[in-house]
Amino acid sequence: MTEEVSRRDFVRMAGVAIGGVALGAVGGYSILPAKETIVTKDVPIEVPEHPWTYTKLDVEKVKKRAYDAYFVGGCSYGSFEGIIGELQEKVGHPFTSIPTIMSKYGKGGTVGFGTLCGALNGASMAINLVSTDLNMVTEVVGEYTETEYPTWKPAVTKKTDIDLPLSVSGSPLCHVSVTKWCEASGYGSGSDERKERCGRLTGEVAGRAVEILNEMAEGSFALAFANPDSVTGCNGCHGDDGNIANVHAKSDCVQCHGDPHTG
Amino acid sequence: MTEEVSRRDFVRMAGVAIGGVALGAVGGYSILPAKETIVTKDVPIEVPEHPWTYTKLDVEKVKKRAYDAYFVGGCSYGSFEGIIGELQEKVGHPFTSIPTIMSKYGKGGTVGFGTLCGALNGASMAINLVSTDLNMVTEVVGEYTETEYPTWKPAVTKKTDIDLPLSVSGSPLCHVSVTKWCEASGYGSGSDERKERCGRLTGEVAGRAVEILNEMAEGSFALAFANPDSVTGCNGCHGDDGNIANVHAKSDCVQCHGDPHTG
Repeated sequence: MTEEVSRRDFVRMAGVAIGGVALGAVGGYSILPAKETIVTKDVPIEVPEHPWTYTKLDVEKVKKRAYDAYFVGGCSYGSFEGIIGELQEKVGHPFTSIPTIMSKYGKGGTVGFGTLCGALNGASMAINLVSTDLNMVTEVVGEYTETEYPTWKPAVTKKTDIDLPLSVSGSPLCHVSVTKWCEASGYGSGSDERKERCGRLTGEVAGRAVEILNEMAEGSFALAFANPDSVTGCNGCHGDDGNIANVHAKSDCVQCHGDPHTG
Repeated sequence: MTEEVSRRDFVRMAGVAIGGVALGAVGGYSILPAKETIVTKDVPIEVPEHPWTYTKLDVEKVKKRAYDAYFVGGCSYGSFEGIIGELQEKVGHPFTSIPTIMSKYGKGGTVGFGTLCGALNGASMAINLVSTDLNMVTEVVGEYTETEYPTWKPAVTKKTDIDLPLSVSGSPLCHVSVTKWCEASGYGSGSDERKERCGRLTGEVAGRAVEILNEMAEGSFALAFANPDSVTGCNGCHGDDGNIANVHAKSDCVQCHGDPHTG
C-alpha cells in the first residue's frame, strides 16, 4: 500500500512565508497524527490616525542631528530631520514612512525667497505631525522672534569653531533674521560664519521644539508667548475684527511699518 | 487505492487571518483533517525612496479638493490635501502613509503670523514629496507674486457666489497678499468674502502646482519665473556675493523698502 504525503510550497510576495506539510495517511487501519501547520504571512502595517504618538526625545541628540542635517539639505530639512529622524531611529514605524527630505523646499525662507525661516518651517511640520495643538507652533515661532541666536555650539563644528555673535530677529522671516545677524556680527550673508550661524540656529530651534514636545508628553506644556504690543494695538483697528480690518497677521507691526500714525 | 488531497484556496486581504483546514482522505478509511493555521504578522510596509513617483492628476479635481479642504483645515492643508489627497485616491500607497493634516500649521502664514502664504507652503511641500527639482517650487512661489487672484471659482461655493475682486500680492507673504486684496476689494480681513477669496486662491495655487507637476511628468517643465529687477539690482551689493552682503533673500525689495538710495 502506498502512502503519500502531499507537500506544498507557499511562495509569497511580502515577507517570508513558511509552508508546512499537511499530512494524513493511512495504513490499513492506523492513522498518523495530523500535523498542524503554521503559515505566517506578513501584511502591511496600517498607518495610524493623525496625530502620531510622540515619544520623548533627547534634546541634545536632536540639536546635533538637526545641525548636521542643515549641512546636507538646509535649515528646513535640518530641523524636520532632526526631530523626525530621531523618531524614526527611536520609534521606527510609522515615522519611517515619512521621507524627511520632503521638507527641503523650506530652505532660505522657501527656496531662497526669505519668507518663513526654514528652521521654523521644519520644526512646525514636525510638531504638527505628532500633535493637533498648534499653540506649540505658536510658541516656537513666537519665541524665536524674541530669542538671541545662536547660543548653542555643537561639539564638532562644520564651518568655524568660534563663538558667534548673537542677534534677535524680531521676526519669523528668514530675510529679517539673516540681515539682523549680518548687521550685528559684521559677517556677510554668504560667509561661512553666516552658514554656521544658521546651522546652529537650526539645531537650537529643533531642540526647543523637542523641549516643548517633551513638555506635551508630560502634560506640562502651556503657551507662554504673547503677541507683541504692536500687534495687539494695531490689530484693534487693522485686525480681522477692527473697523479697518485689512490685516490678517500677528508678526510685530512696528519692525516694518514703524508707527505710521505718529510718523 | 485512491488518495486525495484537498485543494485549498488562499484568499487574503491585508490584516485578515485565515485559519484553514487541511484534509485528508482516503480510500476506505477516513482520516481526521490536519489543521493548518495561517498567522498574519504586521510588518511596516516598505516606503519607496524619495522622491515618490508622481502620477498625472486632473487639475480641476485638485482645485476643487483644495478649495473644499481649505474650509476644513485652512490654506496650507487645503493645497497639500488637494494634491496629496488626490494621489492617495488615485495611486494609494505610499501616499496613503502621509497624514495630510500635518500641514495645517501653515495656515495664515504659519499659525497666523502672516509669513509664507499657506497655500504656497502646502503646494511646495507636495511638490517636494514627488520631486527633488526645487525650481518647480520657485515657479509656483514666484508666479504667485505676479498673478491676479482669485480668477477661478468653484461650481459650488462656500461663503459667497459672487465674482470676487482681484489683486496681485507682489509678495509670497500671507500678510501682504491679504492686505493687498482687502485694499483692492474693500472687504475686511475677517469677512466671508476674504475667506472665500483665500479658499479660491488655495484651489488655484494647488491647481497651478499640479499643472507644473504634470509638465514634469511629461518632461516639459522649464522654469519661467525670473527674479524681479529689484532683487537683481539690490543683490548686486546686498546679496550673498555683494560687497555689503547683508541680504539672503529674493523677494521684491522695493515693495517693503522703496528705493532707499533715491529716497
